Amino acid sequence: MSKIIQKVKGTRDFYPQEMAQRQWLIEKLRVASEAFGYQQYDGPCLEQIDLYAAKSGEELVKEQAFVFEDRGGDPITLRPELTPTVSRMVASMQNQLTFPLRWWSFGPFWRYERPQKGRTREFFQWNIDQIGSDSVLADAELLAVAARFFREVGLTPEHVQLHVNDRELMNTELSKIGVTDAQKPEVLRLIDRLDKLPADVWDKLVLDAGLNETQLADLKTLFENKELWRNSERLVQVFQYLDDLGESAYISYDPRIIRGLDYYTGVVFEAHETEGEFRAILGGGHYADLVADVGGKPAPGVGFAMGDVVIMLVLEKYGLLPTDSIDPKTLFMTIFDEDCLPATLALLAELRQAGFKVVMSEIDRLGKQFRYADRIGVKRVLVLGPSEIEKGLVVVKDLATGDQQKVQRKDLISVLS
Amino acid sequence: MSKIIQKVKGTRDFYPQEMAQRQWLIEKLRVASEAFGYQQYDGPCLEQIDLYAAKSGEELVKEQAFVFEDRGGDPITLRPELTPTVSRMVASMQNQLTFPLRWWSFGPFWRYERPQKGRTREFFQWNIDQIGSDSVLADAELLAVAARFFREVGLTPEHVQLHVNDRELMNTELSKIGVTDAQKPEVLRLIDRLDKLPADVWDKLVLDAGLNETQLADLKTLFENKELWRNSERLVQVFQYLDDLGESAYISYDPRIIRGLDYYTGVVFEAHETEGEFRAILGGGHYADLVADVGGKPAPGVGFAMGDVVIMLVLEKYGLLPTDSIDPKTLFMTIFDEDCLPATLALLAELRQAGFKVVMSEIDRLGKQFRYADRIGVKRVLVLGPSEIEKGLVVVKDLATGDQQKVQRKDLISVLS
Repeated sequence: MSKIIQKVKGTRDFYPQEMAQRQWLIEKLRVASEAFGYQQYDGPCLEQIDLYAAKSGEELVKEQAFVFEDRGGDPITLRPELTPTVSRMVASMQNQLTFPLRWWSFGPFWRYERPQKGRTREFFQWNIDQIGSDSVLADAELLAVAARFFREVGLTPEHVQLHVNDRELMNTELSKIGVTDAQKPEVLRLIDRLDKLPADVWDKLVLDAGLNETQLADLKTLFENKELWRNSERLVQVFQYLDDLGESAYISYDPRIIRGLDYYTGVVFEAHETEGEFRAILGGGHYADLVADVGGKPAPGVGFAMGDVVIMLVLEKYGLLPTDSIDPKTLFMTIFDEDCLPATLALLAELRQAGFKVVMSEIDRLGKQFRYADRIGVKRVLVLGPSEIEKGLVVVKDLATGDQQKVQRKDLISVLS
Repeated sequence: MSKIIQKVKGTRDFYPQEMAQRQWLIEKLRVASEAFGYQQYDGPCLEQIDLYAAKSGEELVKEQAFVFEDRGGDPITLRPELTPTVSRMVASMQNQLTFPLRWWSFGPFWRYERPQKGRTREFFQWNIDQIGSDSVLADAELLAVAARFFREVGLTPEHVQLHVNDRELMNTELSKIGVTDAQKPEVLRLIDRLDKLPADVWDKLVLDAGLNETQLADLKTLFENKELWRNSERLVQVFQYLDDLGESAYISYDPRIIRGLDYYTGVVFEAHETEGEFRAILGGGHYADLVADVGGKPAPGVGFAMGDVVIMLVLEKYGLLPTDSIDPKTLFMTIFDEDCLPATLALLAELRQAGFKVVMSEIDRLGKQFRYADRIGVKRVLVLGPSEIEKGLVVVKDLATGDQQKVQRKDLISVLS
């Protein structure tokens, strides 16, 4: 036997059980998105590299994107994120669209990263944005969507929290402790990396950025200040709206949340598992403009993105992932013998047309047919032998309990429902 | 304003309306697949090129696949089809899987083709296979799945037909008219191209393949023979089973169906729009082995693939595509003024938790809020002003008829349902 060719490093196979989990996740985020009236969209998986030059951070395009020439010699990028695509889509139809847009998407993305727990090179991402609104209500709405999603998958406020901050607040507070505008970008970047660096290294980098020891101490006092949000009228409103929406249990204020991307301008947030075991589950925020740098008229908005890998690890940790790979209501239709086949096929057609999922057996010994049904995870098995056909009956057997009952053919659908 | 960056040639943007159609299509093929107990799976979009060398036709890999080196220098292929991936997946878990497998998938694929009506470089494909069964019942089942799909989307047997043939039958019939085994592959390829070449060119190619004028005439007689299937015990059975399953109206015998791929060995089929305006909607057949050439133990099966582009053109032709981009049951919640906001947000939360999809308005003049609701396609609008809040009422307005009614807050959910 020759060696089986392996899958590409950092990609995943989705056998029915893993696919059932992915599909379950999609349905949960669909419910959360659509409860707020968001509409699904999608862009291509391939984009011109120029698009990312205009929109993405340098690291993402230069170090992580899969870039190649197509057969015609044009440079192509496998999308590493969706924001540039949605910007292009909005810009090219800006006069025909009705703003604010409420759009969500779920699809594959690619980044050339070292495969490790929580990271794959091919991953899926939920993207959701309200585009064309600058209101604080929009900020609150996106946080409420995230909270609704967590409730849908069974994650409680004890499992996960949405950590919220305001970039403008931080800007003002940094000024108050004497950080200059020139120093701010580097200081913000360092705040974003606070959890990723050893404390002493971090302190040194802050001092290298031009702050003095007093400012370093002031900066640390800022991070400890869980009441800092009261200085931001915007955050006061956002938290009030989330309270009115009944979602405040999922919301925490966290002065350390900055988000790396330069384009966030107001409210920013990340969801974290409360025991701190994983990277951020999702992250996003408010931006002053999405589309001007790809050629559109400026449009503000708010949105977030959630990869599939970390959330699945969190759900697995708390035992919240479904384990069935087949719908447990699926029926199994045995084949008694060849003579019974026409009646069996007719019954199959009738049940399927009535909305049942029914697996058809093969012509084989009945015992083997039952074993197959059991192994694929089906719970109820139907038998239609010559005596049943003659009497207008069907045998329904429950594989879990072993119980079996003879049902009148005309009552079968209501008995099974 | 700078020029808007264009999408990559041969790719498509899915704005909410197009996405709603794609999602509708997925739900229809999900219903058809799952009615027969098929389970969803997926593989990576990236595969090693060696996998295609083992499984795919030469044209597909050498001329149509997007191939590139990743940042580590490994050659990577954007999947042009799913069969090699499913072969690899089955081979690498062959001892753990319960056969026959019933697997279906829907996802993106890439081929570097000249973009034209009915062809894009990035497209989606439904793949469905029963793997590990050599029975004629399995052949009939896959045809029944296709028929069920057509019924689900509203295509009748007057719109589409599944054209069925048997490769072994053709093999025998070609022998009968003196075509040698050495000539057969080329003759089969020519039969497959019958519709794509001018008649005189085709005749010449057949003669070039070594057949004489009598054999050419015999070959043409074969194609006219709509009763040829009676010579194939397998087809006689398949048609009987489809009759028992109530699907024979969608089935035609067509001696010209061969399918290009070398690996089909028995029943082969294609779905065609009856007016002949488009390429095949779907195609598939029975294969003697799926996995041996990627290192597994031989496993026979039957399956088909359907791209999204042609079926959407057919559905559009017959006016069967949905045109709503938003669920017409979606509600719109106006905001009377800031004072009413807490009560409005509480009502929003209650409705969404009860399962309603509700778009929240922005703080603005009521007239403008109504116009926005109308433009995004929402049919029912709720108003909660100070007098309604005081009296425990909500105004429900139907935008289509202009009717409005005051509803007791406690009755709202049942009135809206």
